[in-house]
Amino acid sequence: MPERNPVFLVIGAGAGIGGHAAIRFAAGGYHAVLARRSDEASLGRLIDRIEEEGGSASGTLLNAAEDGSIEELVERIERDVGPIEAALYNLGAQIGNRKLYDTPHKTFELGWRLGCYGVYRLAHAVFPAMVERGKGCLLVTSATSAMRGNAGQHSHAAAMGGRRMLCQTLNAEFGPQGIHVAHFVIDGAVDAPDTLGKLLGDKFDAFKAAKGEEGVIDPAQIAETYWHVAQQPRNCWTHELDIRPWTDVAWWNDNPNPEIDGRGKSFAGPK
Amino acid sequence: MPERNPVFLVIGAGAGIGGHAAIRFAAGGYHAVLARRSDEASLGRLIDRIEEEGGSASGTLLNAAEDGSIEELVERIERDVGPIEAALYNLGAQIGNRKLYDTPHKTFELGWRLGCYGVYRLAHAVFPAMVERGKGCLLVTSATSAMRGNAGQHSHAAAMGGRRMLCQTLNAEFGPQGIHVAHFVIDGAVDAPDTLGKLLGDKFDAFKAAKGEEGVIDPAQIAETYWHVAQQPRNCWTHELDIRPWTDVAWWNDNPNPEIDGRGKSFAGPK
Amino acid sequence: MPERNPVFLVIGAGAGIGGHAAIRFAAGGYHAVLARRSDEASLGRLIDRIEEEGGSASGTLLNAAEDGSIEELVERIERDVGPIEAALYNLGAQIGNRKLYDTPHKTFELGWRLGCYGVYRLAHAVFPAMVERGKGCLLVTSATSAMRGNAGQHSHAAAMGGRRMLCQTLNAEFGPQGIHVAHFVIDGAVDAPDTLGKLLGDKFDAFKAAKGEEGVIDPAQIAETYWHVAQQPRNCWTHELDIRPWTDVAWWNDNPNPEIDGRGKSFAGPK
Amino acid sequence: MPERNPVFLVIGAGAGIGGHAAIRFAAGGYHAVLARRSDEASLGRLIDRIEEEGGSASGTLLNAAEDGSIEELVERIERDVGPIEAALYNLGAQIGNRKLYDTPHKTFELGWRLGCYGVYRLAHAVFPAMVERGKGCLLVTSATSAMRGNAGQHSHAAAMGGRRMLCQTLNAEFGPQGIHVAHFVIDGAVDAPDTLGKLLGDKFDAFKAAKGEEGVIDPAQIAETYWHVAQQPRNCWTHELDIRPWTDVAWWNDNPNPEIDGRGKSFAGPK
Repeated sequence: MPERNPVFLVIGAGAGIGGHAAIRFAAGGYHAVLARRSDEASLGRLIDRIEEEGGSASGTLLNAAEDGSIEELVERIERDVGPIEAALYNLGAQIGNRKLYDTPHKTFELGWRLGCYGVYRLAHAVFPAMVERGKGCLLVTSATSAMRGNAGQHSHAAAMGGRRMLCQTLNAEFGPQGIHVAHFVIDGAVDAPDTLGKLLGDKFDAFKAAKGEEGVIDPAQIAETYWHVAQQPRNCWTHELDIRPWTDVAWWNDNPNPEIDGRGKSFAGPK
Repeated sequence: MPERNPVFLVIGAGAGIGGHAAIRFAAGGYHAVLARRSDEASLGRLIDRIEEEGGSASGTLLNAAEDGSIEELVERIERDVGPIEAALYNLGAQIGNRKLYDTPHKTFELGWRLGCYGVYRLAHAVFPAMVERGKGCLLVTSATSAMRGNAGQHSHAAAMGGRRMLCQTLNAEFGPQGIHVAHFVIDGAVDAPDTLGKLLGDKFDAFKAAKGEEGVIDPAQIAETYWHVAQQPRNCWTHELDIRPWTDVAWWNDNPNPEIDGRGKSFAGPK
Repeated sequence: MPERNPVFLVIGAGAGIGGHAAIRFAAGGYHAVLARRSDEASLGRLIDRIEEEGGSASGTLLNAAEDGSIEELVERIERDVGPIEAALYNLGAQIGNRKLYDTPHKTFELGWRLGCYGVYRLAHAVFPAMVERGKGCLLVTSATSAMRGNAGQHSHAAAMGGRRMLCQTLNAEFGPQGIHVAHFVIDGAVDAPDTLGKLLGDKFDAFKAAKGEEGVIDPAQIAETYWHVAQQPRNCWTHELDIRPWTDVAWWNDNPNPEIDGRGKSFAGPK
Repeated sequence: MPERNPVFLVIGAGAGIGGHAAIRFAAGGYHAVLARRSDEASLGRLIDRIEEEGGSASGTLLNAAEDGSIEELVERIERDVGPIEAALYNLGAQIGNRKLYDTPHKTFELGWRLGCYGVYRLAHAVFPAMVERGKGCLLVTSATSAMRGNAGQHSHAAAMGGRRMLCQTLNAEFGPQGIHVAHFVIDGAVDAPDTLGKLLGDKFDAFKAAKGEEGVIDPAQIAETYWHVAQQPRNCWTHELDIRPWTDVAWWNDNPNPEIDGRGKSFAGPK
């Protein structure tokens, strides 16, 4: 009978945070299971890279928005692959800035299904076995929109705000049962070809150049912080942290250069 | 042709905050339209009371969770009754404390439909006419769960957290168009027979007695604060405020009497 | 023996929020005691205006940063004028945006003395009589810097952040004793000649014009909200609310027009 | 000429977080400079332990509340020991829960001097050389009181709230100059003999036992997280994170067992 490594499950394993987290956890001894919606070729390349580096990984295409999809995958992994000791929910719901009337009802609902409901479904599916084993870790990639609602972010912010509160309710119920729930507020641009890259298209390279030296977050570095948090012992758990590049403005700050800031507030003098 | 008073629309017009807001705005000259899910008799009594006090009101039963219901009502009011100059979204999604496995998928989704999606739908339906008139007000009754996720509040907190972020995105887009969006964090028990009363059942009176003098929020007083905020001129708008009784502990505070507090943290000494 | 009206004490009674709060509370039946650091002529004009409008007021110059000054004033009012039933701490510590090395140690300490220590001293001086009477109200004018620390705001944000936490500790201890502590986050430019006016100098009029119609907060309107909160009954108290003009961007939001926004983050696409 | 290792300066190097951070950074190749107010013997034991483990360390007694003390130490280290590449401000201002009238003016001021002013002074002293070198790191140990003001925490919360805002203003100004400022919210009891131990006295062991297995934070583990954050590359910086034991209740949560919770709110049913 084959040895059963602990499993690290990634929902949303693209070439950015999700893929690099899989690489990092595989290097740490987990068998990584990568799930993403499409692009079997990219999925295969990630698995090949992990195996070339001596790690263990497998993957599948998954439509996480479809009822039963996450549930079936979790059941199959626990039965056929190994115990899911850590899971990363890495699906976003970012659709760019859209005015309310460019945000149809179906879009708003899909934002919730991917941004919030999916976290609930993953927790529902994966926590029973973790509770039984008395340990486990759920990492959730989040965004600035979980902290405040910007104009144009109706569906994204509503989904992420719900996701953040859900991470808190899950932490409150399951922390004392040994399950570490961590919510990561990614408050800067990530060098992620599959998400931001597709959002910006051929402007992506110019965007990264404009951000300057180390002005875009390296997803491999985010993966290091995910790994650190996942390895914290029970007496010293972090539930939430923020991440941004040194040159970026924290979400709670105004532009320090008011004269080039369009914000009405900036003309108000310091506040 | 009958005079068309400005309309104050209440989604969730029970005997608590919703009904008292209708009474207050009717006293201020609005025609109140009261919508609630059930109990036509209570609805009639509220309308009678408003008319006896010289106000103008009408009402309807409404299943706000049903697609098209809010939209049709808004359209009908604007066409047949008058311009909706102020609206109150007063539906909650509180189902009591339930562990994750006592929170079925349908329950979690319904929490979102009532707690978050309904606010989006109301804004979608009512804002176009408000924007055209260059003024309007959307009041949203919210709860402590919009600010933090407690154990057992999975569906409620996820819905309210999304609702709060949505109120911020709506404020960011529509404030500069003259629409005042206000989010009220009700952080204490309200003397509301139709909601808390039904939740606590025959324990409701004992609960109120235990809270002591003025230890439960009078919904008529909340209505006064709603009225004040709705009347703020454009140069001086409040987006968010909290409300609780003098004897209650703010959501961000520990119990000041650690010796009677079960919180592990309280034994840690002050922090 | 002369009738003793309840007293409304204003520490920081300039021509902006402080003066207008005094006017509003005097109209509501309080005897207003106005204290400000300098400009006896302006102080006299405010008192004259209140009396011409049929109200009752008196005033004094006060260096609130001086130990014993607030304490002596409170003692004198309680002894000679009347019971202080409401007090407003309206002193700021805004010195404009200054880099750390343009913020000398003495400046940083003075910011704390005016922005934080003064609130502690006022509470220390005025609460004993309020507790004895079982009622009272402390209103504290605050700023965006109480919520987040912007570049250049070292002394102001450190003072306001401490002030906000102090308002919470005072509320936690004294709320159940009948004292209503309220913290007002003024998140926009106020039409205040004595503070913002002096800060902007001859740019003040151009600034107000640039803000457009109702783009600057009318301090008389802030005073109306202060009055409303001060009159809330014990079962329905607000501890914190925010205020800004309809055209202004909330402190937690980015500029909705990224193309005219200097923020690096805005180039990152929506978040 | 002796080799000059990069220096890790700890202000507040007791047997808890400060000492363990010194041990961790020394193991990582820094020369640790330990400063604490008193107990030269304990200081010596820490230095001996670091050197026995092959690290490099030195130390001094320091009254950080005294003007010039931190400034002189920083100058001496940069001149005689090596470049301060990382500094930890680890002084607290916790004096236990005290009512306002048990919190004298001098106590409130001292809380500010140790809790807030000292961070400003350290930044003022150490940042110029860091800016010149284009890199550096300031770690600040903080507490729950930086996030909310509990009853009895007047001086502590006012100091910590100011400290948190100051960390944000420092981050906003100096982040883009290569200085990483990180604020750690320690939201649980730390196994720290010199602080919590002295606060609880002979109740400390019983307290730790009552907290159960891994129910008290191991300061050596906090040091691991400090090390991780200090080593994050510029493109991936964390400014704030929280830490607590798995069994502890997050500061924003109510006790999940209302029946043993003295909070009035708990009787209000879920919110």
